[in-house]
Amino acid sequence: MTDEDTRPDAKRVTTPSGEAWVVREEPLLIELAEGDRVLTMRTPGHDEELAVGFLLGEGILSDRAELQDVEALPAGEGPEPDEDGPPVDRVRVTLRPGVELGPVARERLSRAHAIRPSCGLCGLTSPAALARSLPELRPGPRVGLAELNAWGERMRAEQRTFQATGGSHAAAVFSAAGELWGVREDVGRHNALDKVLGRCVLDGRDLSQAVVILSGRGGYELVLKALRLRVPVVASVSAASSLAVELADEHGATLVGFLRDGGGRVYCDDERLREPAE
Amino acid sequence: MTDEDTRPDAKRVTTPSGEAWVVREEPLLIELAEGDRVLTMRTPGHDEELAVGFLLGEGILSDRAELQDVEALPAGEGPEPDEDGPPVDRVRVTLRPGVELGPVARERLSRAHAIRPSCGLCGLTSPAALARSLPELRPGPRVGLAELNAWGERMRAEQRTFQATGGSHAAAVFSAAGELWGVREDVGRHNALDKVLGRCVLDGRDLSQAVVILSGRGGYELVLKALRLRVPVVASVSAASSLAVELADEHGATLVGFLRDGGGRVYCDDERLREPAE
Repeated sequence: MTDEDTRPDAKRVTTPSGEAWVVREEPLLIELAEGDRVLTMRTPGHDEELAVGFLLGEGILSDRAELQDVEALPAGEGPEPDEDGPPVDRVRVTLRPGVELGPVARERLSRAHAIRPSCGLCGLTSPAALARSLPELRPGPRVGLAELNAWGERMRAEQRTFQATGGSHAAAVFSAAGELWGVREDVGRHNALDKVLGRCVLDGRDLSQAVVILSGRGGYELVLKALRLRVPVVASVSAASSLAVELADEHGATLVGFLRDGGGRVYCDDERLREPAE
Repeated sequence: MTDEDTRPDAKRVTTPSGEAWVVREEPLLIELAEGDRVLTMRTPGHDEELAVGFLLGEGILSDRAELQDVEALPAGEGPEPDEDGPPVDRVRVTLRPGVELGPVARERLSRAHAIRPSCGLCGLTSPAALARSLPELRPGPRVGLAELNAWGERMRAEQRTFQATGGSHAAAVFSAAGELWGVREDVGRHNALDKVLGRCVLDGRDLSQAVVILSGRGGYELVLKALRLRVPVVASVSAASSLAVELADEHGATLVGFLRDGGGRVYCDDERLREPAE
């Protein structure tokens, strides 16, 4: 067995520059009851978490209690969903008896692709209107820029896929006391956040008291996912976009960017940051 | 008039950390004849180019000759597409008489969101099968790693949105002789590539002799867009993913990552790189 076989997240390829590790990017089909399904490209691993975080973060489900069972089915196990296509990894999600997707959730599921990355129908809604549709935030944790930077460093130390490939994003969740509740990596930054939020949901964490750290930019859809799960503080290593700032501001969230050298840019605060902003 | 009014790409916001420029992220509706339309979040500016690059790069149109007219309509001008929503910027694309979207193109348009960022139905197709569906590449330019690095530096010097906000991606196209055919920036890396490819198409450039430089990672969908437009060489500042490498390799393209310090990682070459790979 080679290393390649033992790493679900990365693949060793032979190139004119020699051997190189590249981050794996492969399809995953998330199946709900009755043929509702969504396909995403992701880095394999933690697929159940990805499904749970995705369904809640996109607002397709609104509460963990709606989930009965989440089961990962590797490609080739069981009947394939598409007779004409190659085998594909799947996660089968079973809802509790009596729970049905309403028309809005079904619409969101079919649009789920759209709301991901750099395009989103929800962009047609104003940030103010969108903020009104989100669950209210609690005051949540009080944190300092120094802590946020330390947590960013802690996340970086855990980024094993990135260390091997240089090609993955990461997201981490910390408690207000600085306990690391999870770090996940993925070729897609949305997936990394879905996975770590899914892990926290499955562990029964109180996300209203949590802080999310992102390895890249503080994009609109990422902030939206965190807010849907009631996380009040999002900090990223890089810049935020105008829509992300407007949404966080409207909703009373704390959004910090450019975590580096112990500092950071506080885009909006709402009195959760301990020390005065620079 | 403040700076804010004069910059379509960035917005000045007042934050607890002081004034900050953030990259604008706003919706754009691309309308084709008869109600076919697609919405994307993008940084305003160069919207016609975005539409042209998007339609060709996603394979919804297959040739520039199918386009009759492309017109940007700022929000508030003309009847709004959605009576219930806020005004939205639009690009109206008119096809030449006799040109109609076939069922495959229509399917691709409705899926267009899906094929963007980190998810794609085309991921269900194997890289080999996908490569067979692409236009054949010509031998194209011969280039060296030193040149690719110099072009990456040239692109960086042109990234005015990034210089102001730190929150945008960039894509550039160079001729084999090193002439800069265009640089574009956007909050979404797919959009930046769509814009610069659209610019080149509108200028009648021969993309079969071009090189694309990307500011970020060499992702699968980005490589696919370049290949659909017959660009044989793609080089990025960061890593490529496994699927991007497989696709480029299957299709006989040249894919380089980690452009830095004069070097780079050659993922696949097909005899276009002048000096021996490291």
